[in-house]
Amino acid sequence: MKHIIQTIAIASVALIAAGRADAATPSRPNIVVILADDLGYGDLACYGHPSIRTPNLDRMAADGMRFTDFYVAAEVCTPSRAALMTGRLPIRSGMCGDKRRVLFPNSTGGLPATELTIARMLKECGYATGCVGKWHLGHHPQFLPTSHGFDSYFGIPYSNDMDRDTSVGPKGRAAFWAPKSEYWKPPFMRDAVVLERGPDQTQLTPRYTAEALKFIRAHKAKPFFLYFAHNFPHVPLFASEKFHGKSRRGLYGDVVEELDWSVGQVLDTLRAEGLAENTLVFFTSDNGPWLTFETHGGSAGPLRDGKGSTWEGGMREPGIAWWPGRIKPGVINHELASSLDLLPTFAALAGATLPRNLLLDGVDMSPLLFGTGPGKRDTMFYYRGTQLFAVRKGSFKAHFITRSGYDKEPPAPHDPPLLFDLGSDPGERFDVAKDHPGVLADIAKEVERHRATVTPVPSQLEEAVKQN
Amino acid sequence: MKHIIQTIAIASVALIAAGRADAATPSRPNIVVILADDLGYGDLACYGHPSIRTPNLDRMAADGMRFTDFYVAAEVCTPSRAALMTGRLPIRSGMCGDKRRVLFPNSTGGLPATELTIARMLKECGYATGCVGKWHLGHHPQFLPTSHGFDSYFGIPYSNDMDRDTSVGPKGRAAFWAPKSEYWKPPFMRDAVVLERGPDQTQLTPRYTAEALKFIRAHKAKPFFLYFAHNFPHVPLFASEKFHGKSRRGLYGDVVEELDWSVGQVLDTLRAEGLAENTLVFFTSDNGPWLTFETHGGSAGPLRDGKGSTWEGGMREPGIAWWPGRIKPGVINHELASSLDLLPTFAALAGATLPRNLLLDGVDMSPLLFGTGPGKRDTMFYYRGTQLFAVRKGSFKAHFITRSGYDKEPPAPHDPPLLFDLGSDPGERFDVAKDHPGVLADIAKEVERHRATVTPVPSQLEEAVKQN
Repeated sequence: MKHIIQTIAIASVALIAAGRADAATPSRPNIVVILADDLGYGDLACYGHPSIRTPNLDRMAADGMRFTDFYVAAEVCTPSRAALMTGRLPIRSGMCGDKRRVLFPNSTGGLPATELTIARMLKECGYATGCVGKWHLGHHPQFLPTSHGFDSYFGIPYSNDMDRDTSVGPKGRAAFWAPKSEYWKPPFMRDAVVLERGPDQTQLTPRYTAEALKFIRAHKAKPFFLYFAHNFPHVPLFASEKFHGKSRRGLYGDVVEELDWSVGQVLDTLRAEGLAENTLVFFTSDNGPWLTFETHGGSAGPLRDGKGSTWEGGMREPGIAWWPGRIKPGVINHELASSLDLLPTFAALAGATLPRNLLLDGVDMSPLLFGTGPGKRDTMFYYRGTQLFAVRKGSFKAHFITRSGYDKEPPAPHDPPLLFDLGSDPGERFDVAKDHPGVLADIAKEVERHRATVTPVPSQLEEAVKQN
Repeated sequence: MKHIIQTIAIASVALIAAGRADAATPSRPNIVVILADDLGYGDLACYGHPSIRTPNLDRMAADGMRFTDFYVAAEVCTPSRAALMTGRLPIRSGMCGDKRRVLFPNSTGGLPATELTIARMLKECGYATGCVGKWHLGHHPQFLPTSHGFDSYFGIPYSNDMDRDTSVGPKGRAAFWAPKSEYWKPPFMRDAVVLERGPDQTQLTPRYTAEALKFIRAHKAKPFFLYFAHNFPHVPLFASEKFHGKSRRGLYGDVVEELDWSVGQVLDTLRAEGLAENTLVFFTSDNGPWLTFETHGGSAGPLRDGKGSTWEGGMREPGIAWWPGRIKPGVINHELASSLDLLPTFAALAGATLPRNLLLDGVDMSPLLFGTGPGKRDTMFYYRGTQLFAVRKGSFKAHFITRSGYDKEPPAPHDPPLLFDLGSDPGERFDVAKDHPGVLADIAKEVERHRATVTPVPSQLEEAVKQN
């Protein structure tokens, strides 16, 4: 596929922020999204992990709502994050690719300015907007958080395993097993300025956390949106001294336990600042565990496969919502929900009126959060790059193509599709296509309806600066 | 192996019940053990199941202590139950076998009278003792609960799939997929009397529950021990009308959700009767999920394999302890613990002095329950029948022989043994034997010490009435 690099311009989206003048009224909640990187469905104690301790996330779930069927919109990083930030499938924004599946340091593309981000939407509503951590939606100036509605940015603009300095350390994967931070030299930025190359990754989570807390404390006067996207537990794994070597789950556990500490810091700060009852916090991850990294990759618990796959383990994630006084404590929610739903949900909470021409794949999940009604989502599309691999409707999931996240396994097309009942068979072991011909026909119609809404756009991921 | 059926006589165990006269003092807690049958490690919401709702067990865990590393002593029913009831490995009591691995209706053996049961120990201390549900430690008169220290018994004395009436219903496994209760004709007993043959299994859980509540209400005046052992979710699966067809997890989920309801009834009754703060309740299962029954079998969550196997999925189980006011709420305990430890723990709580000549494999787990000290257990032996297949010491587990619970897979001996670090690799995927020669040597010494304590005894399981 040939691509044309789009001329990027700040698009004139007709965004109407209803009640923009009274942005500071207490009815507009603060919103915090905490995103982990490559954390698996089964990696938190409250999702059944036997040896990782996550008391803060467990408490967040106990005081809030824990989703069992929360999905991201892609099985790898860049497209998943694009979907979260726009409420749209990556196929619509061009933030997916089949050869290059995420953005790399030599990529030239990024999230088009024509896309409406959560940050821009909320900024228009009078929110202070801060991005801390991993971005991965384009590292050239026009794609950075500060070009997409964030007042500020602090972090590594892509993955922490990028910009490997091959002049130091062992070759290949060996570098990951006893990683030293100097093996990797990614940029560390404040706003659009590179502060350092190759930051000390053992300090990454504490630094991000300090910045997040600073942001919260600095913006008590008006509503704020904090997008706190950790680089971990993506490999290479690093934990600070306080956590290194402390978990039963090895280095991976150390790193997750430090993330858990960080979540606790955020919630404690919200409480201490008297903001808890006016703040919605949502925790999730960008995709499933990177299983090829063995014990340095996470666990999808009872789900099949992991990162890079459209089996459940690749795209079903922990999802925890917390808002004391508004979200009933201790609820386990089994409804279908997605990171695609965050933008429309936040729009409803902030009173933003969305552009009429905006084609969203997300739905407002407020009824689920506040127990005011049934969920509006009954379908989930599982893309791998630009290809639709699977569709879930209700409890059933049809696979048209399957492919393991283990890179070497080739894709397998299925005609007729495989069909699993995820309720009775969450591990996708027993094909029930023969027993439910009506379901497959119904899903085929969904696919037809869906495809009619998809217009081809150039991939932002495939184009790269040529390297010698 | 040839066996001699032992002459059964009530053994004169020198049981000294310290303070027997003041048995009714409030310092002696009531004790309730609730045992599920073939429930997997991953089958409860609080252990991460995505589609089964278990609000009562989740609440029990939130108000009590949830163990992540709780083991039973065998991978199938009869030996596991014998171990729980005696605090001794089945190899010592003869309650295991290599050809016949559980007791069947034509078996002639059972738990020898020389074995001290929890019930007899507590009865000697002045407890009222009741057994409700599945026994499976011998159905001939001398082996029944009422011959082993229980004042009363109410239930099916073995598995609910036994005594298949082949004159009705489909042949073979087909009978399990849409089971009707009349396909099976096991005895239903009160004390030593058979009340019915082929009880309506859809009513089993409600009947057992009603009996358990009646027992609790009838014995408020003195301390009681209730052993409440469900027949479910062992196949064939049956739920009462209130639960049938109600779960997202199909019939298996219906059955587990009814068990969860039953647990809620017990805890609610203890609260309503003012007994909660003087009652220890412990919930677990006898072995892992029966995976060969596909969606009618449960899930071991992130653990490997299931029932019939000494991989973790076969023997690591949910373990939840509850005692309001004594056990700190919401604790997740990662220490090694076992059903073998219940007898010595209850002995400590009831003030029973155990016979000096009693060789126990269990240790008092009170320090874990009450947070008064470290656990006393650092080793776990995994037997399959009479053979030692694996040993866990600390975080490491060595496998000398592995065998899947899927019947058709042959056993695989390992020399050198496989070694897994269960902390960093709970799914037993990565053999680390080469990296830890010292650990294997250490475990070899444990095995040597252990074997020196084991004296061969006749198997109670192999001998059967000849059938034409």
